[in-house]
Amino acid sequence: MDVTNLKTMYWKDNKLFLIDQTLLPDQIVYHECENYHDVIDAIKTMKVRGAPAIGVSAAFAMALAELAGENMETAAKEIKAARPTAVNLFWAVDRVLNADSALDEAMLMYDEDVETNRKIGKYGASIIDDGDTLLTHCNAGALACVDYGTALGVFRAAKEEGKNINVICDETRPLCQGARLSVFEMQQESIPVRLAVDSAAGHLMQKGMIDKVVIGADRIAKGGVANKIGSLMVALAAKRFDVPFYVAAPKSTFDMENSIFDVEIEERDPEEVIYFGSTRVAPEGTEVENPAFDIVPSDLITGIITEEGILKPF
Amino acid sequence: MDVTNLKTMYWKDNKLFLIDQTLLPDQIVYHECENYHDVIDAIKTMKVRGAPAIGVSAAFAMALAELAGENMETAAKEIKAARPTAVNLFWAVDRVLNADSALDEAMLMYDEDVETNRKIGKYGASIIDDGDTLLTHCNAGALACVDYGTALGVFRAAKEEGKNINVICDETRPLCQGARLSVFEMQQESIPVRLAVDSAAGHLMQKGMIDKVVIGADRIAKGGVANKIGSLMVALAAKRFDVPFYVAAPKSTFDMENSIFDVEIEERDPEEVIYFGSTRVAPEGTEVENPAFDIVPSDLITGIITEEGILKPF
Repeated sequence: MDVTNLKTMYWKDNKLFLIDQTLLPDQIVYHECENYHDVIDAIKTMKVRGAPAIGVSAAFAMALAELAGENMETAAKEIKAARPTAVNLFWAVDRVLNADSALDEAMLMYDEDVETNRKIGKYGASIIDDGDTLLTHCNAGALACVDYGTALGVFRAAKEEGKNINVICDETRPLCQGARLSVFEMQQESIPVRLAVDSAAGHLMQKGMIDKVVIGADRIAKGGVANKIGSLMVALAAKRFDVPFYVAAPKSTFDMENSIFDVEIEERDPEEVIYFGSTRVAPEGTEVENPAFDIVPSDLITGIITEEGILKPF
Repeated sequence: MDVTNLKTMYWKDNKLFLIDQTLLPDQIVYHECENYHDVIDAIKTMKVRGAPAIGVSAAFAMALAELAGENMETAAKEIKAARPTAVNLFWAVDRVLNADSALDEAMLMYDEDVETNRKIGKYGASIIDDGDTLLTHCNAGALACVDYGTALGVFRAAKEEGKNINVICDETRPLCQGARLSVFEMQQESIPVRLAVDSAAGHLMQKGMIDKVVIGADRIAKGGVANKIGSLMVALAAKRFDVPFYVAAPKSTFDMENSIFDVEIEERDPEEVIYFGSTRVAPEGTEVENPAFDIVPSDLITGIITEEGILKPF
């Protein structure tokens, strides 16, 4: 099951173990979740993050609730409230709630995730040319899923097909999932990778240094895609400089009921921006705007790579 | 002379003292330059930064060379090589080289800088409406000049005219001049200020939260403006969401001879991106693209605010 040498999560002795992604890549520590509240806390503090990984860990949170004989409706409500933007969280909780056995369903979703990502990778690799330099934002990798990844799964699949590719990762402030996680995953795969600050993407495209952009998604709905803050500005630069812009995500990320512009954009703690690790960047008490996601309108998206093929944005 | 309570630089006992901007806002330390090599080092390591401040400190570097009886042509050549992008450096060195007394000319440029910025502020304030929320990128403030600032000078002048404004500062990775310097300057002026990561600017504009953008410039030439990395992406977002985008800079920033696309874009040390203060962000040895500037093409610029009025980009 572990394509990479690290598991994002595993289930053992009726507990969920999540790799603490806030400590990667320097420290490899598995965070033990004994009950569903532990999982909610891990989602809120981003020990686990990435829409597909949030979905599967939420399914295991429901399994923990069932094993403890908790009220499943209450647990479902509380788990769904952990983070507002990624739709996989709601999808996963509802799916488990309607299943006969929460644990069996969670296990099934765990296995399906890798299968889905391999299909996304296969479809996605078809748009990658030998010699391409590919830009990605944030981490839509193995660590954002159970394994293999969505956007980074496309890069893995391209490499498996023998294509030579180069990857540039946006560092992805404030929590630097690009610098900490995506660079790390590409290095593990021996895919040549470079790091750049988020604001350099436009310049790199203006210089003709990027052939395609592939990112993940937290929610895909009518009108566009919600993804990590900064995705919109990358998409605007891609449009300006005629760089194809793809989103790679499983169908569980699709929200067919809402307009993307009605989706709640989570605002996170100002300290994420004021501090960087232990280094304080701005004066103490500085007011901060810290939206976690933004919306890429459909007209900026070339295609959405799913396990069922490459779709047009809607 | 000191509009703010900190001087960017001062001349005393035949030495140049530069506030070490790498340590602001936490530590206020003046860096003593005894000879022109000390000034070159301070420019390279960004103890002094911002096109106008680089220009005036380069003029004082020439004065130090003259006082030491150095070969002025050699000194000029070495000082000009300190940083390649900001044109004020070349302008200032040539101006001093052609003057009777290097020190007198440097002193004159020191005084002129504040006068120029006050004029820029006055013209710039005319485009600011009461109640505006203004976005800026990097630090085109008092600390980027001798005093008062260009983009932030526009905000200071608007406030002096009694307009209520709010400012949002991009943090400006990798060296966070926005978070460390612009936020600090606005707080000192009691102008309400918020901080955001660079990649949030598009989202804030999409939500209608920004009325105008005002940034500085390192060089203005045929076809556009070179400024801190990320300026291009802010300009693209401003265009998309119909937010007026202004550049505030003195005429000394104009390069009438070259196309902006022929200007050398400085690549800086990878460590600036890999480390954040003492915190390492990416795996050791990660390859990095670290361009210090980018180019905003003229079609994205609403106007250029100078000491002679608001000009159309050319």
